[in-house]
Amino acid sequence: MTSLTPSRLGLLTDLYELTMAAGYWQTGKYYDVATFELSVRSLPTPRSYLLAAGLEQAVEYLQQLSFAPDEIAFLQKQPTFQSVKPEFFDFLSRLRFTGTVWAVPEGTVVFAEEPLLRVTAPIIEAQLAETYLLAVMTYQTTVATKAARMTQVAGGRGIVEFGTRRAHGPHAGLLAARASFIGGCLGTSNVLAGFELGIPTYGTLAHSWTMAFEEEAEAFRQFAQIYGPRTVLLVDTYDSVEGVRKALRQGLPFRGVRLDSGNFLEISRQVRKVLNAAGRADAQILASGDLNEYVIEELVRQRAPIDLFGVGTDLVTSRDAPALSGIYKMVEIESGGHVRATAKFSESKISYPGTKQVFRFSESDGEYTHDVLGLASETFPGADTLLEPVIENGKLIRPLPTLDRIQARAAENLARLPAPYRRLEAADAYPVEKSQALRDLLEAVRSRYLPAPAAAGGRKPS
Amino acid sequence: MTSLTPSRLGLLTDLYELTMAAGYWQTGKYYDVATFELSVRSLPTPRSYLLAAGLEQAVEYLQQLSFAPDEIAFLQKQPTFQSVKPEFFDFLSRLRFTGTVWAVPEGTVVFAEEPLLRVTAPIIEAQLAETYLLAVMTYQTTVATKAARMTQVAGGRGIVEFGTRRAHGPHAGLLAARASFIGGCLGTSNVLAGFELGIPTYGTLAHSWTMAFEEEAEAFRQFAQIYGPRTVLLVDTYDSVEGVRKALRQGLPFRGVRLDSGNFLEISRQVRKVLNAAGRADAQILASGDLNEYVIEELVRQRAPIDLFGVGTDLVTSRDAPALSGIYKMVEIESGGHVRATAKFSESKISYPGTKQVFRFSESDGEYTHDVLGLASETFPGADTLLEPVIENGKLIRPLPTLDRIQARAAENLARLPAPYRRLEAADAYPVEKSQALRDLLEAVRSRYLPAPAAAGGRKPS
Repeated sequence: MTSLTPSRLGLLTDLYELTMAAGYWQTGKYYDVATFELSVRSLPTPRSYLLAAGLEQAVEYLQQLSFAPDEIAFLQKQPTFQSVKPEFFDFLSRLRFTGTVWAVPEGTVVFAEEPLLRVTAPIIEAQLAETYLLAVMTYQTTVATKAARMTQVAGGRGIVEFGTRRAHGPHAGLLAARASFIGGCLGTSNVLAGFELGIPTYGTLAHSWTMAFEEEAEAFRQFAQIYGPRTVLLVDTYDSVEGVRKALRQGLPFRGVRLDSGNFLEISRQVRKVLNAAGRADAQILASGDLNEYVIEELVRQRAPIDLFGVGTDLVTSRDAPALSGIYKMVEIESGGHVRATAKFSESKISYPGTKQVFRFSESDGEYTHDVLGLASETFPGADTLLEPVIENGKLIRPLPTLDRIQARAAENLARLPAPYRRLEAADAYPVEKSQALRDLLEAVRSRYLPAPAAAGGRKPS
Repeated sequence: MTSLTPSRLGLLTDLYELTMAAGYWQTGKYYDVATFELSVRSLPTPRSYLLAAGLEQAVEYLQQLSFAPDEIAFLQKQPTFQSVKPEFFDFLSRLRFTGTVWAVPEGTVVFAEEPLLRVTAPIIEAQLAETYLLAVMTYQTTVATKAARMTQVAGGRGIVEFGTRRAHGPHAGLLAARASFIGGCLGTSNVLAGFELGIPTYGTLAHSWTMAFEEEAEAFRQFAQIYGPRTVLLVDTYDSVEGVRKALRQGLPFRGVRLDSGNFLEISRQVRKVLNAAGRADAQILASGDLNEYVIEELVRQRAPIDLFGVGTDLVTSRDAPALSGIYKMVEIESGGHVRATAKFSESKISYPGTKQVFRFSESDGEYTHDVLGLASETFPGADTLLEPVIENGKLIRPLPTLDRIQARAAENLARLPAPYRRLEAADAYPVEKSQALRDLLEAVRSRYLPAPAAAGGRKPS
């Protein structure tokens, strides 16, 4: 167990998952086997794709899900549960996840409405997991996607994630470090992410180091004396170009300098000139501070001599689109040997019934052409299927891929995505067709649950 | 220790905090005592105030901060630290926070540049804490502020936080539940927040419950049979008004109904009418789904018959402004008995030197008039001072207030804030003057560090 998964998991859910669980138990529905699918309803503008991430933490959760005695005791004394039979709590104290999970591997490019994860399990187990699975998977998918948007326009320069301090709490910072790496970042400033996940860590010094010394030159000298050629000096505490000169005058063995404020294009050019004139063409320039994919794209376009970008707030909060419309919907239920497809027809929130699979078609050179969202029972010759079995009867089928592998898969997937979808501005929606069988199933379920006039009216899936 | 504070704290920091720590140690600066202040550089539009939150988790962190042997071993084998003396790691393995902390109590209204927290400690301890303190305090402050914006326009109707699934990971959901309660929410759907913090929990059932039964009417009946008059039925799985009729026809003892889609104004009016006609004027209507402060204000203005709002995504991600420009800056350092004020003059990122205090002035009826940001050594008769001592020499001075107290303080603070600042649209900036002594100190530090022409040029604090 890593720090990425908290120790108390049973109660880390919404209350209604537990009231429903008690309800399923008390109405004898416990043996019903439900299938839920986790997907994103629509892509936030101007995104043209998502990069799936977070499966490993979803698996950790499912494998560790349980209720401690003090948690059970807490539930039992809640007024809400006063009419629930004590046997339910005995049941809950023994609960473990025994179901089956299919998922899209992390680092896969996905689109709206495509399931990232599918859980088939006794209904209580599948239901309880909703809240946690959504939180851990949609957040990492959000950040991996944002990171991909940045790395795709960085023109080969490196991007490092520096955002823990601006993340939604320190734990979010850890998840963000992981997701950013999947999206193509070189590393993170978060040391725990290095410890737990083996992600390369970056960072040397902050303004406070400089301020801790009477003179900036002295601060530089002292630091370089310890860290030698690994030193990256932060030069903007008082004046960036003057800061670089101070370092050069002392002949310090620094590896690079970091700019953290001002007009990066102008200052990086001045600094590059000063460094080159001093015979330090090898010294790297790192820029950090209020960067996002648009600023990076523009700096790259203008050939700013910046070797490395450090990105914080915009990356870890996905500032322009800090949430995805993640949903986890029941698509099928098996009760007493009878299988029934399920869907929801709430206005503009329709969910598609049936256990699904994503079929991906490509050109012979590997470039993606379109997807078909179909039923898992269908086959489409020539297509790759995105959802793979991960957990069977509660057991992990095979070890999950390493982060390096996941990062490589993401890079490979992005390279196969046609160029218009990789640009920062929104492209037309990537073609994802629903199969005829899926559309037929939706209509069959619709006609079963909705009165005919309403079905004919304003409730077409939008 | 609660689930709100992760177990591994030493490495949950940015790498540069540790390289600087090693540097301070190796250059003999360990005995220097530094003062850092945590503040927010500017308020995100259109906010006119912030509601301080997160201090309790900051205190938990400082009191539990330590490095486990495997964490030390990890650091020692990093190439970055190869030139650092082994004694530093011995030192680190014994490190505990021994400093002093002053802070604004949680639930206090604060403005840009006002310190929420001030840490005075041996420089290594104060430095290492930067990343974690910023993450945990600015996130909770972000959400408490967003919650306050919602509760201030809800016209007395209740707001419940439903957002864990859309939070930046499950742990962020827990922090959000706490911060939302401080901002005036009645409770949360997050059960762990109930367990750990005693926050009232809300929730009954989701669409999947309805979909688990062949018929919606049967689903309602089964649920109400268990939960009786506590039942809140989710009625929009197929058709909201029809759903309510189904519940009424069966004479179920539900307490209320939840609408989760569609035009809330229209549907709530229809549902209210149907409920009243059936003699259920007592039944509550809860609305959830894509709500934010603007939608709530408009529904209240139009007198939508909604008793309770359930808010998720916009609240826990503070969607329109998901990050604050939180900073943690060294303002003073004492080295060998000599005290020196410090500041940073990077372009448009100036920080004010000196150990500060916030002085708050009010009318005789309690309404706030203005603040003075001054030096801690100053006194302003008639003003309340916002920063209070919390930790002295590593020890908590007195128990922190309960969440109920914090929520009450927030309500009291907001009530004393003049009305224009409580509206959703941005007001003119609340008057926060810098004291003459503070401005003099800034100029003194500036003239010490910046060459005269630059100081006279474009570097005035903006």
